[in-house]
Amino acid sequence: MSTPARILLGIDPGTRNAGWGVVEVRGTSMKLVACGVLKASPKAEIAQRLETIFAGLETLIVQHEPVAAALEETFAGVNPKSAIAMGEGRGVALLALARGNVPLLELSPAEIKKAVTGNGAATKDLVARMVCARLNLTTTPEPQDATDALAAAIALAHRM
Amino acid sequence: MSTPARILLGIDPGTRNAGWGVVEVRGTSMKLVACGVLKASPKAEIAQRLETIFAGLETLIVQHEPVAAALEETFAGVNPKSAIAMGEGRGVALLALARGNVPLLELSPAEIKKAVTGNGAATKDLVARMVCARLNLTTTPEPQDATDALAAAIALAHRM
Repeated sequence: MSTPARILLGIDPGTRNAGWGVVEVRGTSMKLVACGVLKASPKAEIAQRLETIFAGLETLIVQHEPVAAALEETFAGVNPKSAIAMGEGRGVALLALARGNVPLLELSPAEIKKAVTGNGAATKDLVARMVCARLNLTTTPEPQDATDALAAAIALAHRM
Repeated sequence: MSTPARILLGIDPGTRNAGWGVVEVRGTSMKLVACGVLKASPKAEIAQRLETIFAGLETLIVQHEPVAAALEETFAGVNPKSAIAMGEGRGVALLALARGNVPLLELSPAEIKKAVTGNGAATKDLVARMVCARLNLTTTPEPQDATDALAAAIALAHRM
């Protein structure tokens, strides 16, 4: 009997762009299903931008039916204004997961780096290369937000 | 011909509680329609709490059909962790307004105080008393979050 496949979603939330990555895990093997970036119009008001990102995440959840999702815990060293904006993006991402009944795991940046590269202090470049290696990709997904989301999904797979 | 009534919504968003207040404005007169606090279970996960608050706001928007809504701009002096949490609460409030096609006005704390009391540096207590006076209430709405939301709605009425 074959091991059942599990679909995992990683999200790198924001108020202008939200990176996402979907991986399929079967036993110890893992493959890329899809990844990309949801983009809101930079000219739109914040509420409309959040709606675009929320609607995009809802669609992804319906399409891929992930059994769990991972988000990187937000960096605590940012200034309060940026932190509020980060929170707004996170808020709608968390809401999309709650509405889709997708269990959520939040991982620290170090936990994600450690899971993907073996080193909790790895550079972004090394993380990107290891994401490619882990998913047998020949090139790094563009842009960076999608790679970050895939790294979160890979770290989630390690945890499960 | 009588002046048409306009329904305005004020929101004081949060990730545990969200204060709200609905006022009806007709010319220069104003009255309370309803106010309260949406409460999420403190034991629930953040995603579930945000969903409770979002669903509550969506219901209020459908019930009262506000023509516009006001939120207080978030205080910039908080620490990053609190700022992220504030942003999460704001994110779902902004999303509920965007989904309900309710135009949003963000007002600074000083603008709200000035509109309600005539003094941009008024105390919370004076704001609460003036909210009561403006809406002909005999007692201050409990808790504070509802009063803050009503103050935002009154300030919005002044702007329109």
